[in-house]
Amino acid sequence: MATTKHVKNYIRTQSRQKEKTGSSPGTLIYTGEKRREDVSINIMSYNEKGYTEKVCDVEDNYLKNLPPDNITWINVDGLHEVNVIEKFGEFFNLHPLVLEDILNVNQLPKVDEYQENDIIYITLNEFYFDDGKHNSLDRDQISLVLGKNFLITFQEEEGDYFEAIRDRLRNSKGRIRARGADYLAYTLIDAIVDSYYIVLDKYSERLETIENEIFVSKNEDHVETIHHINKDLIFFRRAIAPLKEVIYQLLKQDIILIQPSSKAFLRDLLDHANQIISQIDVDREFISDLIQTNMTNLNSRLNEIIKVLTLISTIFIPLTFIVGVYGMNFDIFPELHWKYGYFTVWAVMIIITAIQIIIFKKNKWI
Amino acid sequence: MATTKHVKNYIRTQSRQKEKTGSSPGTLIYTGEKRREDVSINIMSYNEKGYTEKVCDVEDNYLKNLPPDNITWINVDGLHEVNVIEKFGEFFNLHPLVLEDILNVNQLPKVDEYQENDIIYITLNEFYFDDGKHNSLDRDQISLVLGKNFLITFQEEEGDYFEAIRDRLRNSKGRIRARGADYLAYTLIDAIVDSYYIVLDKYSERLETIENEIFVSKNEDHVETIHHINKDLIFFRRAIAPLKEVIYQLLKQDIILIQPSSKAFLRDLLDHANQIISQIDVDREFISDLIQTNMTNLNSRLNEIIKVLTLISTIFIPLTFIVGVYGMNFDIFPELHWKYGYFTVWAVMIIITAIQIIIFKKNKWI
Amino acid sequence: MATTKHVKNYIRTQSRQKEKTGSSPGTLIYTGEKRREDVSINIMSYNEKGYTEKVCDVEDNYLKNLPPDNITWINVDGLHEVNVIEKFGEFFNLHPLVLEDILNVNQLPKVDEYQENDIIYITLNEFYFDDGKHNSLDRDQISLVLGKNFLITFQEEEGDYFEAIRDRLRNSKGRIRARGADYLAYTLIDAIVDSYYIVLDKYSERLETIENEIFVSKNEDHVETIHHINKDLIFFRRAIAPLKEVIYQLLKQDIILIQPSSKAFLRDLLDHANQIISQIDVDREFISDLIQTNMTNLNSRLNEIIKVLTLISTIFIPLTFIVGVYGMNFDIFPELHWKYGYFTVWAVMIIITAIQIIIFKKNKWI
Amino acid sequence: MATTKHVKNYIRTQSRQKEKTGSSPGTLIYTGEKRREDVSINIMSYNEKGYTEKVCDVEDNYLKNLPPDNITWINVDGLHEVNVIEKFGEFFNLHPLVLEDILNVNQLPKVDEYQENDIIYITLNEFYFDDGKHNSLDRDQISLVLGKNFLITFQEEEGDYFEAIRDRLRNSKGRIRARGADYLAYTLIDAIVDSYYIVLDKYSERLETIENEIFVSKNEDHVETIHHINKDLIFFRRAIAPLKEVIYQLLKQDIILIQPSSKAFLRDLLDHANQIISQIDVDREFISDLIQTNMTNLNSRLNEIIKVLTLISTIFIPLTFIVGVYGMNFDIFPELHWKYGYFTVWAVMIIITAIQIIIFKKNKWI
Amino acid sequence: MATTKHVKNYIRTQSRQKEKTGSSPGTLIYTGEKRREDVSINIMSYNEKGYTEKVCDVEDNYLKNLPPDNITWINVDGLHEVNVIEKFGEFFNLHPLVLEDILNVNQLPKVDEYQENDIIYITLNEFYFDDGKHNSLDRDQISLVLGKNFLITFQEEEGDYFEAIRDRLRNSKGRIRARGADYLAYTLIDAIVDSYYIVLDKYSERLETIENEIFVSKNEDHVETIHHINKDLIFFRRAIAPLKEVIYQLLKQDIILIQPSSKAFLRDLLDHANQIISQIDVDREFISDLIQTNMTNLNSRLNEIIKVLTLISTIFIPLTFIVGVYGMNFDIFPELHWKYGYFTVWAVMIIITAIQIIIFKKNKWI
Repeated sequence: MATTKHVKNYIRTQSRQKEKTGSSPGTLIYTGEKRREDVSINIMSYNEKGYTEKVCDVEDNYLKNLPPDNITWINVDGLHEVNVIEKFGEFFNLHPLVLEDILNVNQLPKVDEYQENDIIYITLNEFYFDDGKHNSLDRDQISLVLGKNFLITFQEEEGDYFEAIRDRLRNSKGRIRARGADYLAYTLIDAIVDSYYIVLDKYSERLETIENEIFVSKNEDHVETIHHINKDLIFFRRAIAPLKEVIYQLLKQDIILIQPSSKAFLRDLLDHANQIISQIDVDREFISDLIQTNMTNLNSRLNEIIKVLTLISTIFIPLTFIVGVYGMNFDIFPELHWKYGYFTVWAVMIIITAIQIIIFKKNKWI
Repeated sequence: MATTKHVKNYIRTQSRQKEKTGSSPGTLIYTGEKRREDVSINIMSYNEKGYTEKVCDVEDNYLKNLPPDNITWINVDGLHEVNVIEKFGEFFNLHPLVLEDILNVNQLPKVDEYQENDIIYITLNEFYFDDGKHNSLDRDQISLVLGKNFLITFQEEEGDYFEAIRDRLRNSKGRIRARGADYLAYTLIDAIVDSYYIVLDKYSERLETIENEIFVSKNEDHVETIHHINKDLIFFRRAIAPLKEVIYQLLKQDIILIQPSSKAFLRDLLDHANQIISQIDVDREFISDLIQTNMTNLNSRLNEIIKVLTLISTIFIPLTFIVGVYGMNFDIFPELHWKYGYFTVWAVMIIITAIQIIIFKKNKWI
Repeated sequence: MATTKHVKNYIRTQSRQKEKTGSSPGTLIYTGEKRREDVSINIMSYNEKGYTEKVCDVEDNYLKNLPPDNITWINVDGLHEVNVIEKFGEFFNLHPLVLEDILNVNQLPKVDEYQENDIIYITLNEFYFDDGKHNSLDRDQISLVLGKNFLITFQEEEGDYFEAIRDRLRNSKGRIRARGADYLAYTLIDAIVDSYYIVLDKYSERLETIENEIFVSKNEDHVETIHHINKDLIFFRRAIAPLKEVIYQLLKQDIILIQPSSKAFLRDLLDHANQIISQIDVDREFISDLIQTNMTNLNSRLNEIIKVLTLISTIFIPLTFIVGVYGMNFDIFPELHWKYGYFTVWAVMIIITAIQIIIFKKNKWI
Repeated sequence: MATTKHVKNYIRTQSRQKEKTGSSPGTLIYTGEKRREDVSINIMSYNEKGYTEKVCDVEDNYLKNLPPDNITWINVDGLHEVNVIEKFGEFFNLHPLVLEDILNVNQLPKVDEYQENDIIYITLNEFYFDDGKHNSLDRDQISLVLGKNFLITFQEEEGDYFEAIRDRLRNSKGRIRARGADYLAYTLIDAIVDSYYIVLDKYSERLETIENEIFVSKNEDHVETIHHINKDLIFFRRAIAPLKEVIYQLLKQDIILIQPSSKAFLRDLLDHANQIISQIDVDREFISDLIQTNMTNLNSRLNEIIKVLTLISTIFIPLTFIVGVYGMNFDIFPELHWKYGYFTVWAVMIIITAIQIIIFKKNKWI
Repeated sequence: MATTKHVKNYIRTQSRQKEKTGSSPGTLIYTGEKRREDVSINIMSYNEKGYTEKVCDVEDNYLKNLPPDNITWINVDGLHEVNVIEKFGEFFNLHPLVLEDILNVNQLPKVDEYQENDIIYITLNEFYFDDGKHNSLDRDQISLVLGKNFLITFQEEEGDYFEAIRDRLRNSKGRIRARGADYLAYTLIDAIVDSYYIVLDKYSERLETIENEIFVSKNEDHVETIHHINKDLIFFRRAIAPLKEVIYQLLKQDIILIQPSSKAFLRDLLDHANQIISQIDVDREFISDLIQTNMTNLNSRLNEIIKVLTLISTIFIPLTFIVGVYGMNFDIFPELHWKYGYFTVWAVMIIITAIQIIIFKKNKWI
C-alpha cells in the first residue's frame, strides 16, 4: 500500500548503515539503491574562450591529464560501482573519509575542508516531489569535490537542472565561463536550493486545498493527509537545516578556494536557505493550527449531533410516558372514562412541547 | 470565495520563483503583480536652503546629471517594466544581485552593503490591512538604495506616507533638509515601521471582539476567524522579524554611509521593531489561549447538553417501563383489579422521581 | 461590562501611537490618559548635612539655578502638559528623542545613554493591581533622567512609595543622603521592582483559590478567570522582561554616571528582576497545568454523566421492550393465557437486570 | 486540608517580601518561619593534626579570637534572632547586602564575591520530602560565607548531613582536615546536592506508581496527584537551576579563595547539578506524556461506554416501536387477527436483530 | 509484569546513588548490578609489526611491566570487584574521582583530562535493545582511560563489537596497528556510536508498524506502546546528548594525547552523533504527531458512533410515541374507529421517516 511504502522511504534513512557496524571505519560500501545500470562520467572543460565536452570511462587517460589552464567539471552518475569511486579517490588523492561520505548517501548536508590536498568536500540533498499515486518525497544525495580548477560532482542519478547549467556553460557570453570552479559550484548549489522552492510549493498547495475543504466543504477527514505532510516537512526541514551551517562555513572560514567575488553570491544563497527554512516553520505552525481547527470542528459537530439527539429525546420521551400511562389496563382508571379525556391528553402534550421549545429557544439550542 | 483568495495571497509567497529555477542566477524577472499601468519616477533634490521637485522619464538627462551638492531622493513606482530598472542599474552602476532583489518582490527584509560602489541596499515590506470584505493583509516590497548623497526607492505602488514625508521636506524649517540621505532613509523606514502598529491594531481589535463574543455572547463559532488571524500573524511576524537584524547591521558595522548622529534614531527604530515583534508574540499567545478557551467552552456546553439528556432519560425511561408493565394484556394480572392499583402506580412513580431529583441535587447536576 | 474594559486596558497598549504615524519623528504628543488636572513639580535638594524641599512652577527661577554642591531630585507629576515637558528639555538640554520617550507612555523598559550631554535616560513601568470590581492590572510609565548631580523623574501620577523615599531622605542618618544621584535612582527603581512582588502575589493568591476550587469544590467554571489571569501575566511579563537588559547595561557599560559602589546594589536588583520573571514563568506553567487539569476534569465528569445515562438506558430499554411485547393485541397470543405468564415475565426481567448489574460490576462501571 | 496547605507552602515563596516594599533597602528582616526556640552556634576548628569543638554564644570572646592557623567552621542555627546575625556582620565585617541575603530566606541560589573583605557569599536551598500525609516538599535556605581560613554557615534549622560531615572531620585520617576551608565548603554543597537525588527519587517512585496504575489497573483518577507532582517539580527545578551558574562562577572567575586543587571537585559537582536538572526535565516530559495518555484513556473509555449505549439503543428502540404498533387499539387492524400474526412479529424482530448484529460485527463494534 | 519491570529499569537511574549521600566523596562503591561471576582482564599489546594477547590476573606482574614501545589495550570486564579497580588505580596512578566514576555506572557521557598524570578519562553508554518479551532498552556504562601509549577500558560485561575490533587488530595490514592509542579509542567509540543506529532502527520500525495499524487497520489501541517508546527515546536522548560535548572537548582543547591526524575521524564521529540526536528529535516529533492523530481518530469514531445512536433515536422515538398514542384506552377515542385509521397512521409514520431521512441526507449525516 502507498502509505506503507511512503513511510519506509525515509524513516529508515539511517538504517542501512547497520550492516556497517563493527566493520572497519573506512570500508567503502554504497548505502543507497541502485537506480541505473552503468556509471556515466561526463567531463566539461572550459575557459573564457571556449569549452570541450566529453563522456568518458574511468580508465580513460583524459582524466589523468586534465588541461591545467581550464576549469574542469567532472560529473559522475552512478555510485553503485564502488571501484569506480575508488579510482577517483586515487586520481585526485582524496581522503578515505571523503570516499566513504560520497558512498554513504544517507547524510545531512556538510562541508569539510581538506587543506593537505587543497580540496573542499560538500554534500547536499536534492528533493523530488513524486506527484503520482504515492505523493511522496524522494531524496538524492549529491557530493561536490571542489579543487583549485576543477569540480567533481557525484550522484546516483543526475537531476534535470544539471543540463540547464551545461547549456549556460555552452552558451555563456563569458560570464559563467569567466569565473572559477567555485562559481560553478555555487551555480549548482543555487540550482539545488531553487528546486527546494518547488517542493515547498507542492506542500503549500496541498495545505491550501485541505484548508479549503475544512472550512468550505466542512469535511474533516484529512487527519491522515495532514499527518503525512507534517511528517514530510519534519523530514525535509531536518535534511536542509544544516545547509545554513554549510554556507556559513564557506563564507566565514579562510577558505582560499572560494574567491572573495563569489562571497556575495553565497550570501544570497544564505538568504534563500533562511527563507526556505522559515517557510517550512511557517507551514508547520500552519499545520498545527489546522490540526487544532480540525479537532475543534469535530467537537463542534459532536455538539450539533448530540443537540439533535437531546432535543428529540427531551421532547418525545416524556410524551411517550404520558401515552404509556393511558395505555395501562387498570380496571379502575377514572380518566379513561372522561368525555374529553383523550383531547385533554393531547392538549397537555402540546403545552408541554410548547414549553420545551420555548426553553430551548431561550437557551439558543434551536 | 474570500477565504480561498485570502489564503492564496501569501501561502504562495515563494512560489512565483519557481519559473526561475534552473535559469541563470542574475536574469531579471519581476515576480510580483502588475498593479499600475506606467512607471513613474519622482525626483526630489534638496539642501538646507531649498528644494526642487521633478517627475521625469528614465531617458531623462536629469537623472544622469544629479546636482552634486544636493541630497537627491529618486522614487520609482512600477517595477513591472524591467528595462527601466535595468537602466537604473546602469546609471548608478548597481550590482546585478541588487537589481534581481529589487524585482523579486517576495523577499524578507535584508541589508547588503556593496563597498565597491559605495551603496547600501535595503529591502523592507509594507503592509496594508484591507478592511473590506476580504479582511486580508496585503503586502508590498520596497527597496532602498542608499548612496553618499542620494536615495533611490523602488516599489510597484507608492504608499500614502511617502507624500507626508515629501511635505515635511517641502515645509522643513531646516531640520530634515539639513541632514543627509541616511536620515531620509531612516525617515522612510520609520514611517513604514509606524504603519505596522496600525496593522497590529486591527488584529488586536478583532481579537478583542472575538474574546468578547466568546465570554459574553457565549458564541463559539470563531474557529475560522481565529484561524485566519493566527495565519496572518504568523505571516506578518515572519515578514518583519528580519528587520531587527537589518537595523543591527546598520548600527554595528563600520558603515560609513550612516552618520554617527543618525545612530540614535536607528536605535529608536530598533526599539519599535522589538516592540512590534513582542506584541505579535503576545497576540499569538493570546490566540492560543482563545483557542484553548473555546475548546473548553465547547466541552462545557457538551456536558450541559448531555446532562439534560441524561436527566430526562433517567427520569422518564424507568417511568415508561412501569406504565408499560401495566399495559400488558395477561389474563391473570392481579394488580389491574386492585381498587387503588392505578393510584398506587402514580404514587410509586412520584416517589421514584422525587428520589431521583434528590440524588441529582446532591450530585449538583441540577 | 468589566471584562470588556479589562481587555481594552492593555491590548491597545500600542494603539495610541497610530495617530503619530506619518508625522515627523520628533513631534511631541502625550500618548497617555490625562489623570490629574495640573502639573506638579517637586524639588528635593540634599547633601550629607541637610536638605531643602520645594514645590515650584516650571517658570520658577529656582529650576535654572540648582545648588551645584547638592544632589537634586526633581519630580514632575503630570505629563499631559506637553509644553512643561518641552521647557524641561530646554533647561536641561535634553535630546528630542528623550522628550518624545517621556511623553510616549506606551514603552517597554529601556535605557539610553546620551554622552554628549552626560545624562542617562531610563524608562520603567509601575503596576497597580486594582482589587475592585474590575480586578484589572493598571500600568504607569515612569521616566528617569539621571545627570551628574541630579535626577529628574517624570510620570502622570505619583505612586505611593515616592513619599516613603522622601521620608528616608528627610530622616536619613546620612546613609542615603551621603550617596550620589545614582544611588537615589537605584532606590527608586528598587521600590518599583519591589512593588512587582505585590502584583505577582495577587495573582498567585487568585491562582491558589482557583486551584482549591477545582480540586476541592470540583467546580470547573474558571475558564474565564484563568484566561484573564493568563492574559495579565503575558502582558506583565512582556512589560518587565526588558528590565533585565536595562540593569545589565547599567552594570556593564562604562557608564561613568554609575559609581562602582552602586554596582553591588544593581546586581542585587538584577537578582530581583530575575526572580520575578522566573516566578511569572512558573505561574504560567502552573496556569497551563490548571487548564489541562480542568479539561481532564470536564472529560471525567462527562464520562460519569454518560455512564449514568448508559446504565439507565441499558437496564430499562430492554425491559420496556419486553413489557411492550405483552401489550400487543394479537388474537392468538398463547403466553397471555398462561396461568403464570405475568409472573414469569417479571422473573425474566429480574434475571436480565441481575445479569446486567453483574456485568456492570465486573467492568467497574458501578 | 492537605492540598491547600501544600499549595501555600511555596506559591507564596516571594510573598513575604511584600512587607519590605518601600522600606529602606538594607533593613534586616528575617523573612522565614521561626522553627526553633533559640540560636545555636557551633564552632569546629581544625588542622591536619587535631580539632576542637565548641558550642558558644554570640557574645563569646572565642568568636573574636579565632586561632589563625586553623580552619574554623562556624555553624549558626536560628536566623530569627536578627541581632545575632547583625553581630556576626560586625565581627566579620560583612557587607549589609550579605546580611540581608542571609535573612531573606526566599532566594534562588547565587554566589557573590566581596573582594574588599575577601569573602565569598553562597546561598543554596536544601529540600526535604515530607513522606507523611502532606506528601509535600519542604525547603530551607542555607547561606555560606567563605573566608581565607574560615567558613560560616547560616540556616534556621540544621540538616542531618552536617553531623555526618562533622564526624568525617573528627575521624579524618588527614584528608578532609588537610585541605582548606574551600574544600569544606565543597563538602557541604556536595552533601546538599546529593540530597537532591533523594528528593528526585521520591518523585520518580510516585510517577512509577501512577504509571503502573494507569496502565495496569486502568484507573484514571490521578489528575490531582499528577498536577501536584508537576507543580513540585516546576518549583524544584526553578529553585536549583541557578546552582549551575553558581558553580560556573566558582570555577571560572579568578576567585583566589578557591584553590586550583578544589576545582576538579567543583567540576564533579557541576556534573551532578547537570544530571539532576536533566532528570527533572525528563520527569516533566514524562508527566506531560502521562497527562496525555490519561486523557486518551478517558476518551477511549468514553467511546466504550457510548458504544454500549448505542448498541442497546439501536437494537431495542426499533423493536419497541414494532411491539408498540401491535399495541394500538384500532378497530380495524388486520394483522391482529392473522393466525400467525404474533409469531410473524417475533420472526421479523429476530431477523432485524440478527442483521444489526451482523452489521455491528462487520464494523468491529462488537 | 513486563511493563513494571521495564519502567524500573531506568527511571531509577539515579536512585542507587542515595546510599552514598552523606558519606565521604571518594569512597569506592560499585553502583550497578553484578552481571558476571569473576573479573576478566584481557591485554592486547601491539605495534606495526606484531601483537601479543594475554588474559591475566590483576596480581600479574605483566601489568606492572608493560612493553614501553607497544600500544597496550587493557580491557577489564567486571566492575563488581571494587578492589581490582582500586589496584588499577594504584598501578596507573589514577585520580580518586576517576575510580569513583568508573564504578558509578549511572553517569551521562563526559570527558575529563587529568594533566598531572597525563591521561584522559572518557565515559560512554552502550545500549542494547532487548527484542524479547520485555521489548526494553538496556544500558551499560563503558569507561575509557587513555594514556600516552595505553588504553584501559572498564565495563561490567563486554559488548559484541569489542571482539570485532580485536580481530581487526590481529589481521590489520598495518593501518590500525600503525596508529596510536588515541586511534584505538576512536575505533571503540565509533563502534559504540554505530550501535546507536541499530537501537534507533528498532524504534523506527516499531513506529512504522504502529503508524500502519493506526491508518490501515484503524486500530487505536496503541496508547501504551507509544507511551513506552516515547519514554525510551526521552531516556535514550538524554543518555547520548552529552556525547557531542565530549567530542567537542576532544577536538577543541589542546589535548596533546589526541594526535592531529585523528581529529578528522573525530569530526566524522561528531557528524554521526549529530545525526543520531536529530533523528531522535524527528522520531519524537513523529510520536507527538501520532498521539494527536490517534486522539483525533478516537474523536472521529465517537462522532460516528453517536451519529448512529442519534439517527436511530431520532427516527424511532417519535414513531414509538405515535403508536403509543393509539395504544391508549380512552373510552372516547374517535380515530380508533375510523375505517382507515390504522393505515393512515402507517402513512403518517412513513412520511415522517422519509422527511427525516431527507433532512439527514441534506446535512450529510448519512
